[in-house]
Amino acid sequence: MSKYWNRLTKSLVPYVPGEQPKDKKYIKLNTNENPYPPSPNVIEAIKYAVNEDLKLYPDPNADALRKVIADYHGININQVFVGNGSDEILSFAFAAFFDSSEKILFPDITYSFYPVYADFYNIQYQEIPLKEDFSLPIEQFNIPNGGIVLANPNAPSSKYVPLEDLEIILKNNLEKVVIVDEAYIDFGGESAVKLINQYPNLLVIQTLSKSRSLAGLRVGIAMGTDELIEGLNRIKNSFNSYTLDRLAIAGAIAAYKDKEYFEKTRKKVIETREKTMKELRKLGFTMPDSMANFIFVSHPKVNAEEIFLALRERGILVRYFKKPRISNYLRISIGTDEEMEILINNLKEIIK
Amino acid sequence: MSKYWNRLTKSLVPYVPGEQPKDKKYIKLNTNENPYPPSPNVIEAIKYAVNEDLKLYPDPNADALRKVIADYHGININQVFVGNGSDEILSFAFAAFFDSSEKILFPDITYSFYPVYADFYNIQYQEIPLKEDFSLPIEQFNIPNGGIVLANPNAPSSKYVPLEDLEIILKNNLEKVVIVDEAYIDFGGESAVKLINQYPNLLVIQTLSKSRSLAGLRVGIAMGTDELIEGLNRIKNSFNSYTLDRLAIAGAIAAYKDKEYFEKTRKKVIETREKTMKELRKLGFTMPDSMANFIFVSHPKVNAEEIFLALRERGILVRYFKKPRISNYLRISIGTDEEMEILINNLKEIIK
Repeated sequence: MSKYWNRLTKSLVPYVPGEQPKDKKYIKLNTNENPYPPSPNVIEAIKYAVNEDLKLYPDPNADALRKVIADYHGININQVFVGNGSDEILSFAFAAFFDSSEKILFPDITYSFYPVYADFYNIQYQEIPLKEDFSLPIEQFNIPNGGIVLANPNAPSSKYVPLEDLEIILKNNLEKVVIVDEAYIDFGGESAVKLINQYPNLLVIQTLSKSRSLAGLRVGIAMGTDELIEGLNRIKNSFNSYTLDRLAIAGAIAAYKDKEYFEKTRKKVIETREKTMKELRKLGFTMPDSMANFIFVSHPKVNAEEIFLALRERGILVRYFKKPRISNYLRISIGTDEEMEILINNLKEIIK
Repeated sequence: MSKYWNRLTKSLVPYVPGEQPKDKKYIKLNTNENPYPPSPNVIEAIKYAVNEDLKLYPDPNADALRKVIADYHGININQVFVGNGSDEILSFAFAAFFDSSEKILFPDITYSFYPVYADFYNIQYQEIPLKEDFSLPIEQFNIPNGGIVLANPNAPSSKYVPLEDLEIILKNNLEKVVIVDEAYIDFGGESAVKLINQYPNLLVIQTLSKSRSLAGLRVGIAMGTDELIEGLNRIKNSFNSYTLDRLAIAGAIAAYKDKEYFEKTRKKVIETREKTMKELRKLGFTMPDSMANFIFVSHPKVNAEEIFLALRERGILVRYFKKPRISNYLRISIGTDEEMEILINNLKEIIK
């Protein structure tokens, strides 16, 4: 604590990202990164953009990128917002649409940054308990609220909510903004983007960090009606006009243009996930059917924290959350087939 | 206005960055960019970093970059914070150290983003009028306040305050954070960084956008005691854990390492500035002695807005602020010798 910190700074409990240890080389299955590199076209496009123009500010509105994304999704450029990762966009969205007058709603088990944003902006929230099997209790969101935030597929549970269920929530809350955080949507789910013209209260947030293998470039996107996007712009332009650098813009454009590579790698991740779930279930692990690039596993005999530590010892990083209801689960990112084979072999030994 | 915007979003008057027209090629003297490209070592270092590792998150703490900056300034790594441009860091600093209980102080003529940040975080502020010649009325900052923000050199006035004057303000306000925004310090001023161990209330903010020719890469830095830096970290980690991408980190490291190139280009800008000021004074323009990479000029006979529009017509962009006290001034960035010659020739015709 410092006397120079204001009340907010003193009160914050910041988000803690997955560890990035530097002591040795690990098999990293702890931050849901993609095991495949970005498209070669992305690499080439960025290299091309590494030139003297770096002396100039980027386009603060990133029009070229927004145009490519709008075309990709068949929507209007004014329905697209881009930012420094989906985390930044989530933060802007909390700032733009929620306030302290009414509680916002999100599940009790979900992305642990949501309560951090809420505290940062002094927004009250109520956590809606997921059902025993981690599925979303749709009817519980039919109560007075100041907005709703849902990750779909959810993290760390990996469970997906079909669009018809989301639509019930959207219809029941037409006066409030419903944020659907689709960081993991490309691994088997159907995006709610197709609903933005139908539901003016829907803001869909996605990222290039996962399915487009660009966690290191920091690009996120949001899609919704012009009004919602304009709200995000007002916040952004009161915070930092130039959040995306020239190279991030160039790389992101190339990523959206190479649809073939995107399809190939996301399918590969899905295949590896299905194979891994099958193998782990044979070993007695239980888990929800995942629609993400990670799985959420528990073992009836060996404690999750014990497995976490044993894996770490063996050079494999997974994510363990010491939290109510999920303290006996591990979130394991889907790596390459080879990485998952090493994981499975180690798990076999650990649970013996 | 949208019913989905909260009170904050409705009330904001966002910052407006200098225009970036795309209709034709302009001589851009309106956003204080450096006319020289970044160091060739920076280009090379970034190209080297454009590789498969982009699939992985960057180091959220950017330790490698912070170490290089700490060594450069002879301070400790825990005294360095890095972010997505100095604008983002200023925003974090407002969030960390100021609050609604006491008015913060900044000059009436200064970087126009300060009141925007204050409104964004609901921080009251009092504008301290600069003297008639745009110099800082040191004694006016000796009143009760919740913190102080000073740009040194100031923008858009281009005037520099010597460290001994800043020290008076620092001494008179030991219980409050004093932010010194040194975006333009490398063009002739002396940095207050050397004072951070002496004044625990001092936070120095700099950018790589100007003197290191990297406006397109988005990197800013802050330096102060461990406590102030930890305060910024708490805010950042409640907002977005990964604000600097891998390429920005790689480029910024290379920029700090190539001191020779930095010295050469900043000296060149200073020389061109001195020459330009001399020429413009011959034409009757008046201006403060600039210590920045821009000048702030006025002409006794021709109105600034008129000159602004005439220059624009001729393909030269400068910045005009339609604001009290400075509505007859133009902020002109220092370009290459050739660009300034074209500017001067055009001005000669315009004021004829």
